[in-house]
Amino acid sequence: MDTHFIKNNNISLDLAVEAREIVRGQTGQEIPGCIMEKETYNNATVTIVRVVEKYAEEIMGKPQGNYITIDAPSIRDNSKQAHQDIAEILAKQLSALFNLPEHANVLVVGLGNWNATPDALGPKVVGMTLVTRHMYNYAPEEIRGGMRSVSALSPGVLGLTGIETAEIIKGVVERVKPELVIAVDALASRSVERIGTTIQLADTGIAPGSGVGNKRTGLNKETLGVPVIAIGVPTVVPAAIIAGETLDRLVEQVKDKPELQGIYQNMNSETFQPIVNAILQPYTSGQLMVTPKEIDSLIETTARVIAGGISLALHPAISVEEYSQYLH
Amino acid sequence: MDTHFIKNNNISLDLAVEAREIVRGQTGQEIPGCIMEKETYNNATVTIVRVVEKYAEEIMGKPQGNYITIDAPSIRDNSKQAHQDIAEILAKQLSALFNLPEHANVLVVGLGNWNATPDALGPKVVGMTLVTRHMYNYAPEEIRGGMRSVSALSPGVLGLTGIETAEIIKGVVERVKPELVIAVDALASRSVERIGTTIQLADTGIAPGSGVGNKRTGLNKETLGVPVIAIGVPTVVPAAIIAGETLDRLVEQVKDKPELQGIYQNMNSETFQPIVNAILQPYTSGQLMVTPKEIDSLIETTARVIAGGISLALHPAISVEEYSQYLH
Amino acid sequence: MDTHFIKNNNISLDLAVEAREIVRGQTGQEIPGCIMEKETYNNATVTIVRVVEKYAEEIMGKPQGNYITIDAPSIRDNSKQAHQDIAEILAKQLSALFNLPEHANVLVVGLGNWNATPDALGPKVVGMTLVTRHMYNYAPEEIRGGMRSVSALSPGVLGLTGIETAEIIKGVVERVKPELVIAVDALASRSVERIGTTIQLADTGIAPGSGVGNKRTGLNKETLGVPVIAIGVPTVVPAAIIAGETLDRLVEQVKDKPELQGIYQNMNSETFQPIVNAILQPYTSGQLMVTPKEIDSLIETTARVIAGGISLALHPAISVEEYSQYLH
Amino acid sequence: MDTHFIKNNNISLDLAVEAREIVRGQTGQEIPGCIMEKETYNNATVTIVRVVEKYAEEIMGKPQGNYITIDAPSIRDNSKQAHQDIAEILAKQLSALFNLPEHANVLVVGLGNWNATPDALGPKVVGMTLVTRHMYNYAPEEIRGGMRSVSALSPGVLGLTGIETAEIIKGVVERVKPELVIAVDALASRSVERIGTTIQLADTGIAPGSGVGNKRTGLNKETLGVPVIAIGVPTVVPAAIIAGETLDRLVEQVKDKPELQGIYQNMNSETFQPIVNAILQPYTSGQLMVTPKEIDSLIETTARVIAGGISLALHPAISVEEYSQYLH
Repeated sequence: MDTHFIKNNNISLDLAVEAREIVRGQTGQEIPGCIMEKETYNNATVTIVRVVEKYAEEIMGKPQGNYITIDAPSIRDNSKQAHQDIAEILAKQLSALFNLPEHANVLVVGLGNWNATPDALGPKVVGMTLVTRHMYNYAPEEIRGGMRSVSALSPGVLGLTGIETAEIIKGVVERVKPELVIAVDALASRSVERIGTTIQLADTGIAPGSGVGNKRTGLNKETLGVPVIAIGVPTVVPAAIIAGETLDRLVEQVKDKPELQGIYQNMNSETFQPIVNAILQPYTSGQLMVTPKEIDSLIETTARVIAGGISLALHPAISVEEYSQYLH
Repeated sequence: MDTHFIKNNNISLDLAVEAREIVRGQTGQEIPGCIMEKETYNNATVTIVRVVEKYAEEIMGKPQGNYITIDAPSIRDNSKQAHQDIAEILAKQLSALFNLPEHANVLVVGLGNWNATPDALGPKVVGMTLVTRHMYNYAPEEIRGGMRSVSALSPGVLGLTGIETAEIIKGVVERVKPELVIAVDALASRSVERIGTTIQLADTGIAPGSGVGNKRTGLNKETLGVPVIAIGVPTVVPAAIIAGETLDRLVEQVKDKPELQGIYQNMNSETFQPIVNAILQPYTSGQLMVTPKEIDSLIETTARVIAGGISLALHPAISVEEYSQYLH
Repeated sequence: MDTHFIKNNNISLDLAVEAREIVRGQTGQEIPGCIMEKETYNNATVTIVRVVEKYAEEIMGKPQGNYITIDAPSIRDNSKQAHQDIAEILAKQLSALFNLPEHANVLVVGLGNWNATPDALGPKVVGMTLVTRHMYNYAPEEIRGGMRSVSALSPGVLGLTGIETAEIIKGVVERVKPELVIAVDALASRSVERIGTTIQLADTGIAPGSGVGNKRTGLNKETLGVPVIAIGVPTVVPAAIIAGETLDRLVEQVKDKPELQGIYQNMNSETFQPIVNAILQPYTSGQLMVTPKEIDSLIETTARVIAGGISLALHPAISVEEYSQYLH
Repeated sequence: MDTHFIKNNNISLDLAVEAREIVRGQTGQEIPGCIMEKETYNNATVTIVRVVEKYAEEIMGKPQGNYITIDAPSIRDNSKQAHQDIAEILAKQLSALFNLPEHANVLVVGLGNWNATPDALGPKVVGMTLVTRHMYNYAPEEIRGGMRSVSALSPGVLGLTGIETAEIIKGVVERVKPELVIAVDALASRSVERIGTTIQLADTGIAPGSGVGNKRTGLNKETLGVPVIAIGVPTVVPAAIIAGETLDRLVEQVKDKPELQGIYQNMNSETFQPIVNAILQPYTSGQLMVTPKEIDSLIETTARVIAGGISLALHPAISVEEYSQYLH
């Protein structure tokens, strides 16, 4: 598939696997400075993109680090077994990204706006997280052995608080002094297929301006002083991308007709952007989102899977089976 | 603007003004058997489409009757005055559609799924409606003079109840025996500009298969035995329409280039539909919606305006100013 | 324990086991015309009170019929196993109350106000009920074999709709024509211990004026034309009962002191009622409720258990384990 | 009214006016080291208790400072005019408690648990607060002239976050550096009459262990480094107080009968506490709350009044009339 529109409009993509597709689409070959791995599981495929060389950062539009994508279309199925499988894969991948001491202190942060369904994933996961920090020091050693000290916070968004989300988190990190921050966020994808079914883990934290609500400041080791693992799930596709990709596909279909050569060469963002703008007005490019009708229940399920995966990774003493006993 | 895609794909439009645009776009002239009027107000434009002749029904895809469209972009402004103005215009238009006796009994029905934000308009309006039926017979004559007996119900959707919405409403209508049913519903539009800012009133009731949730059975005088006025507001644009209209606009732009004549003639739904399907898969045409990020607050505001307009029309003794005293 | 206050103030109790306690407390012996049975299970005790003779109705303040009380304090524990056990006991008791044909059509009704946490049990159960009626006739025989046609409705309360709840249900029953109605409601108890942990089943339906919100009309075979099984859970204790029982207990403690004989004899409702009224003013007796701080999560858990029990009873093909797969 | 139970059980009261009543009840005279003033308004009475001397702190159980109580039973009326009047009185009293520079930076903190209706007042007020900090520096001087830089945060409760609320607030205060913190909280009262109708302002901040959810750490100038004004509204009465006051009143009624002298002297907490415990078991004293059925709508109204009062005090350029335009 051609990717004229996304490239020419400098749309930055939240998912590393999608950034890679775009770059590879352009060059037709593997990206230098990047390593790609694939693992196949029951109910999920895992793709790991490692941006290993500094010079690959600019090509990919992503900082050096590890990006793990779990593609799990069976999240959409109403199967408890599938959901447990995916939570376990998430726990395994999450554990592989950090090497936490036994009694480590972890802060889970839920980014996004709880009032807007497609942006509410982070706060929902926080609401389902098994929080232990306030009881941890009173618990007997045999319990603490298989658990970690976990706290959780949904800082809200700038429009609700008047405070940059990153400022709130910095303030709390300075007090709680966690060894690791796990930040959960709703993402934008270029593909409706990934909505609610793809989970991305990144040990580079949250990039500035990413996510459904275009969070402004980045959250990473540099800004917070502790490592940040980001867990994101696409919940929307920007409407501009739907419109742009439609144009790309039309052009793709007709481009091998010799009589169109001239026109095709002119079909760049100068032609496309006014069309897309006209369709979306009076909204600007980032304000309109494509989302499935059932987004409420998709987010509910995905949040359960993510909260389950986080708990399994942080509290190894708790089995998947037992886990749901801790959730109301 | 061309409307190739909507015409060729037999997409039925919830708004009569949009249906009219499509038909006029084809023929280039006013539609026989229809009358169109326009009124201009502070903060709103009102367009009335009257399908007066039986033969116009098929052309318009709408049954004989009156369709009033209030276009009020200032609903998006955070201005109390604008909202009161629009509620008053709605009340005036609503009153013009029926001739209710002084002590009439009216049932307000809120269609749609309260769990899915863009489909929740109807239930929200019901929650804000000033319900009086249970106190009406106990109230002294001087109070009842300027009020009517109003009841309100949100029947839910088929997936939540297992019962056709129309069946629930019929059962309740047989018990409550209202002289009029007002049915409020979230609609799909072809234009993002109309989301949350256009209000349509129709004295033909609710057409089968219309609305965001594709309600299956129609609600009208024939099915319920009493007149039904429908109040609808677009809250989404189907993603397929965004994709389709993008294609239409591209073709429009290049169609006067002579070297493209041949290609343009082949650019019909056979070319377009596979492209749109590919973009939207694995979802089918009706499952993906384009909606603004701020849809939650847009629906909140619109619901207040509609509930206000209904109360003003049904309870003439209550001024706009006082009205908000009755709402919690 | 003495029960001066409840008796002298003619407080009607929603739970038959509590009505029986009061009557027995008075007479000191088993109630004529009633049969009492007890069953003990893992995680629950079941008490069955059968009002078998007509003349016992007035003594008990309950119509002839079977009242099953499941006392399950372990609902408060965060144990999935306990919750499954209790759902299975509920399913067994529910199945014993009716003899439904294989393909029977059942309507589940959730009484109460979804806006008021302690009165929201019924609507919550409806939201968790596995609804099948709309798909039942399309399902292949091998699936329908172990399932029944279930529909579900939360009619709201009089203050929200302006329509008597019983009227809405009658209208829907006439349309849906179920063989059985199961009505779920939040109850008032005299004991805080029972809040969220006692489940009462009654094949006599819902008594007029019972429940947290004092639903006005009864729901039973006479009013609806089909059998009604009521499932109720206490979520509050009226504050007047707390005050009254406190007085009863004080009097109890001092009543064997000879010097108090005279005073004790005067300590009847004429002494008590003004004290209770003064404490509760400006509220009237039924408006103030005692409820635990954690009522939100207690109701959440109890609703899951009840929805699970209903589904097990109505859909025998679905195991407890599988059941949660059908719930989001 | 006697206050045996509260005194003897060392129940600490959130409201200074109630603490004063108890102390005065004991001594029968005005409290040394305290000053009391009364102001009467349309729709409200204002009582100001000033703990001026250090030695009065222990008698009152309240630190030195100013405690302003606004008693406004008409909050319960559905009158917009009354609500505006009360918001204006609150604004006036709030302004009198601090002397803020024109461009001051204020942080509004909403304490309590948003999942439990009676404890959700603080988060609700935060959700309705007109937040300006993120736009303040970009606004033209003529707008900033009559407004202040306001941010707002609902930190959650310990059980939800695993972090002491005070720690989160300290972290954010260090970042945002406000000149003033306004902390809003739901309180417990000894009188049902005050629920939802009394507003207390205190320039001493939040006492440790106060509020519906028994917040553990205090919030005041010492712990946060900036002045803290607390705004609290009773939303519950502990069930133990209802029981205890019932006993007090009974004893009061019989205490002038000479034959009861001996018994009365023994009727202290040793007699009362076991009775109250028996009534409330298995709950402990602080877990059961008395609250009116309509607490949801009472809190909704009170939150609007408080958010309105705060905005009027902080943004003098905004009139009451205009204020509601800023709220969705």
